[in-house]
Amino acid sequence: MVAPLRVGIAGLGTVGAEVVRTIEQQGRVLSARCGRGVRVVVVTARSKAKKRGVDLRGITWAKNALAIATDPNVDCFVELMGGAGDPALSAIEAALKSGKSVVTANKALIARHGLRLAKIAEKHGGPLNYEAAVGAAIPVVKTLREGLAGTDIDRVYGILNGTCNYILTRMEQEGLSFAECLKDAQRLGYAEANPSFDVDGHDTAQKLAILASLAFGTKVAQSAVYVEGISSIAPEDLRAAAELGYRVKLLGVAVRTKTGIEQRVHPTMVPRSSSIAQVMGVTNAVTIDGQGISPITLVGPGAGGAATASAVIADIADVARGIQVKPFGRPAARLRATRKAPMERHEGGYYIRLMARDLTGTAATIATRLAERKISIESIVQRHPDRSSDGGRANGKSSPVPVILITYATNEDAMRSALQAVQRDKVISGRPQVIRIEKN
Amino acid sequence: MVAPLRVGIAGLGTVGAEVVRTIEQQGRVLSARCGRGVRVVVVTARSKAKKRGVDLRGITWAKNALAIATDPNVDCFVELMGGAGDPALSAIEAALKSGKSVVTANKALIARHGLRLAKIAEKHGGPLNYEAAVGAAIPVVKTLREGLAGTDIDRVYGILNGTCNYILTRMEQEGLSFAECLKDAQRLGYAEANPSFDVDGHDTAQKLAILASLAFGTKVAQSAVYVEGISSIAPEDLRAAAELGYRVKLLGVAVRTKTGIEQRVHPTMVPRSSSIAQVMGVTNAVTIDGQGISPITLVGPGAGGAATASAVIADIADVARGIQVKPFGRPAARLRATRKAPMERHEGGYYIRLMARDLTGTAATIATRLAERKISIESIVQRHPDRSSDGGRANGKSSPVPVILITYATNEDAMRSALQAVQRDKVISGRPQVIRIEKN
Repeated sequence: MVAPLRVGIAGLGTVGAEVVRTIEQQGRVLSARCGRGVRVVVVTARSKAKKRGVDLRGITWAKNALAIATDPNVDCFVELMGGAGDPALSAIEAALKSGKSVVTANKALIARHGLRLAKIAEKHGGPLNYEAAVGAAIPVVKTLREGLAGTDIDRVYGILNGTCNYILTRMEQEGLSFAECLKDAQRLGYAEANPSFDVDGHDTAQKLAILASLAFGTKVAQSAVYVEGISSIAPEDLRAAAELGYRVKLLGVAVRTKTGIEQRVHPTMVPRSSSIAQVMGVTNAVTIDGQGISPITLVGPGAGGAATASAVIADIADVARGIQVKPFGRPAARLRATRKAPMERHEGGYYIRLMARDLTGTAATIATRLAERKISIESIVQRHPDRSSDGGRANGKSSPVPVILITYATNEDAMRSALQAVQRDKVISGRPQVIRIEKN
Repeated sequence: MVAPLRVGIAGLGTVGAEVVRTIEQQGRVLSARCGRGVRVVVVTARSKAKKRGVDLRGITWAKNALAIATDPNVDCFVELMGGAGDPALSAIEAALKSGKSVVTANKALIARHGLRLAKIAEKHGGPLNYEAAVGAAIPVVKTLREGLAGTDIDRVYGILNGTCNYILTRMEQEGLSFAECLKDAQRLGYAEANPSFDVDGHDTAQKLAILASLAFGTKVAQSAVYVEGISSIAPEDLRAAAELGYRVKLLGVAVRTKTGIEQRVHPTMVPRSSSIAQVMGVTNAVTIDGQGISPITLVGPGAGGAATASAVIADIADVARGIQVKPFGRPAARLRATRKAPMERHEGGYYIRLMARDLTGTAATIATRLAERKISIESIVQRHPDRSSDGGRANGKSSPVPVILITYATNEDAMRSALQAVQRDKVISGRPQVIRIEKN
């Protein structure tokens, strides 16, 4: 009989407490599955006194994370403190250097220091597992790292931030503004008081950088990700998307192009019939396009104590079973550097919403400017002014009228230059709204 | 440097040839991922002469599967011959007994002999991997066996047969009959000349028995699965489902109930908004309900050469990496026997379509018979006879009129007994159509 796996946990928030509770309750099942016991022997957190609803008797309380990381009686160090730097970083480093296995749910840390930690892990032989860092209980890290080991991947993309998807879902379903939905998300605890990390796309970018590394063998680097958030999305964009057979999602997309791996996060029009378009509310989803096979989509809870704990425990079980895979699937030394996607060279279709000053001639002008740059229009819709109001004609001038275009695939440079020309023509008012289209 | 993994493959159909081709083409990537080379050293198939579009030079041709299974120069035996018995069965047994690792895509074999093979594998220490047996490239075996090791599962259900889903999708989208769609499926190669294995639910039952074992620790046994196929489904059921907010899918469902694990395959009404309802055409999907977490759904190609080969290669890569997990996640000796679900005790909602002989009084009679058995009706819809025709009244008698009911959860026994009473009342003509409802 193999000796039980001795686990030390740093961080006892919702996730940490849930991990301790589950290992206590599922201990026998877990032991049977792993062929050895799994025992939490030491924990630490900011406050020892805090009520957590979990029995910590019989578990040593360490003075800090580093003490657990260097404790010779610990086999597996579980980091659930969070934060992209210390104390989590040095504790994980110390644990790996002492030959321990490490499990973490810390996406910010893996996105920033994953490469360095992977090198240390490989050198010292301990696994570094981080399933919970992306999509919580959705087994996307395992799927990319192990399940598709023999499949060439062309693209991986997904809804990786529940807050943004909650906001976009409510905006679409109730016709509300971004600001109203954000306020509700904050009230419900789905968004932070400072929501920028979520709604500006940075959380998605960190997760995407990790997925890209696993899928394409790139060096994980948040700085290589082009990022745009959802704050500019208006209810009329969601309405128009619906009419045109699309839905707007904040996607993280990593895709193999002729010039390299393109990593980008931005609001995206996806076909309404695609699996990813069906994902509503705080749910997350990842689609993987493997060469020669139909897309694989994984859908599930991307956050929450129980869902995150589920992934952490699966990672611990893998350690107990002796499953050992290189942190990014391939040797860290072979991961390739990648640079920020030059979006001016991005190729794809575009949704463009313009406010035409006057209907007469505007569509023709726009079509001409696009045609000059060889951009083909898939559809063009001119909204007639609302006839139930005076349409702004009371003062003798007509109000701007929305014109909505869908282009066929072109490059972003050409599209931007066409829109600048249209602006110079003074046939539109305000800035055009542009949303990239991602085909499935 | 670890020596390369020496792979022997029995069966060179579409999948086998694709596996050989991929290992040749992806050899370097695969080696980097696994930390050792992966090399096909010996193969066999029925015909050596057959053109397969794959380079077999440098690969030994064995006289049969057993020769590969007992070849001391083979580390990993890959069985891609198919068939629930010999020669696949004895070859796998021999390979396991000689300490080899085994990879198979053979669902029929795992469903029938999985338990016995798992015991042999555990005794001799070789892994037995069969990711391709369920959902081809969808990593559902890995997800249940490893990814959710620490999560208590309440229910696993899915669309596990692409042929049935293709037929139901076309019936719904084009209003065609089962027979017409089946003929098309046969013409397109989605259905066999003898379609019973697919459309009567047996293929789904084999896959479900495997998933149930992984999710609940039951002894894999197709005989424990209650099975109904899709041949009785009529276009009017799909139309009514749509109007009532449902869609009809052939589901395999394994669920924990008060009286044990219930395993069943039957046409099922699923809420139109559920992830599983969005899965159209030949695509497969599995949803896993873990305790305390939102459902996880995996969607992807459930068949096809490349998709199946992708799973086979992932299994081979796991062997190369030394990943070793018990075939059904837990020790085979601890798997529990399960008996066929007593469907009369099944609890759930029901869709019932009846042909009422006459509108007057029929609804009241039906409602009374249901009420006597404490069955509550969620909705009842009486279709008015088509006013554009004579509605069958020309001969002075009215034609039967469809009445569609949705019940709240009840037990199947009560529902059947109520319908028998309604039939005795002679207010309906023909047999009632009954479809179980699965809530998400």
